[in-house]
Amino acid sequence: MITAVRILGLDPGLRHTGWAVIDCSGSKITYVASGVADSTDSLSLAERLLELHQKIRTVITQYSPDEAAIEQVFVNKNPETTLKLVQARGVVLMTPASCGIPVAEYGANQIKKAVVGVGHAEKAQVDMMVHTLLPAAGKMKPDAADAAAAAICHSFLRVTKERLKLLSELAKK
Amino acid sequence: MITAVRILGLDPGLRHTGWAVIDCSGSKITYVASGVADSTDSLSLAERLLELHQKIRTVITQYSPDEAAIEQVFVNKNPETTLKLVQARGVVLMTPASCGIPVAEYGANQIKKAVVGVGHAEKAQVDMMVHTLLPAAGKMKPDAADAAAAAICHSFLRVTKERLKLLSELAKK
Repeated sequence: MITAVRILGLDPGLRHTGWAVIDCSGSKITYVASGVADSTDSLSLAERLLELHQKIRTVITQYSPDEAAIEQVFVNKNPETTLKLVQARGVVLMTPASCGIPVAEYGANQIKKAVVGVGHAEKAQVDMMVHTLLPAAGKMKPDAADAAAAAICHSFLRVTKERLKLLSELAKK
Repeated sequence: MITAVRILGLDPGLRHTGWAVIDCSGSKITYVASGVADSTDSLSLAERLLELHQKIRTVITQYSPDEAAIEQVFVNKNPETTLKLVQARGVVLMTPASCGIPVAEYGANQIKKAVVGVGHAEKAQVDMMVHTLLPAAGKMKPDAADAAAAAICHSFLRVTKERLKLLSELAKK
């Protein structure tokens, strides 16, 4: 049986953390909601991280996702930016877990491959494909679209895993 | 008036996060408690970060610190270790803020200078000085001693700030 699940995609950043919620049932995906959680520049780093944590918790409370997906961390060229990004990612990664929701991590190329079909697709191609797959989303902000890409990747790989499981069960009969 | 405050020092790490609680009243500091919050190797990164968050929250609930202090992040030579450390730091930095406790950040050399008197002190000198300043602590684990060093640094710099404030108030009279 293919089960329906609601997936929360997350694209972490200290200033802007994108999020997107999609429903997936088999290979059918439906847009639910998306947005960007911003942190306030003038606050301390600890307070900004808390802001992100609280805003993502609010999204989780509002949309009750079953699973979450997030892009694996990459090292930015600017060390200071990387340090802030990675600290934000730690908080964003922990937040669904704090609500009892499992979080899957995917590499950037894995997400591109799942969404576009090739592992080294351009950002614009990913964005276009995300909007094509989720027409009800309208025009999403870049961070929200990146979050949606992570959610779509997870929805596709979940289906593959479920199908492999079904095939192996059928083979046993 | 010099106010008495309870300070929580934190030394973040994914595997082991050290913590130490001290009371300070003027330049007098007293050891309260210390320990190490460990995360479980076999869990996912999201779950390990949540474990650290919950363990630090438990320490905060138990000892009710007024303020927290944490060492500023540094870049480890191994990028993968750094990424894990920095994500853990994000969560550990956010945790006191989630309990309404302000968090001060200090550079490694600032902590060494406050505790030992020189900015480039050896780790062993810092450790010895921490144990001398907090005789009631007995032998602390290295991560707990590093957390205590951050707390001591904060207690000293708080006093300096309060004295400067007093002097400037007196000068106005």
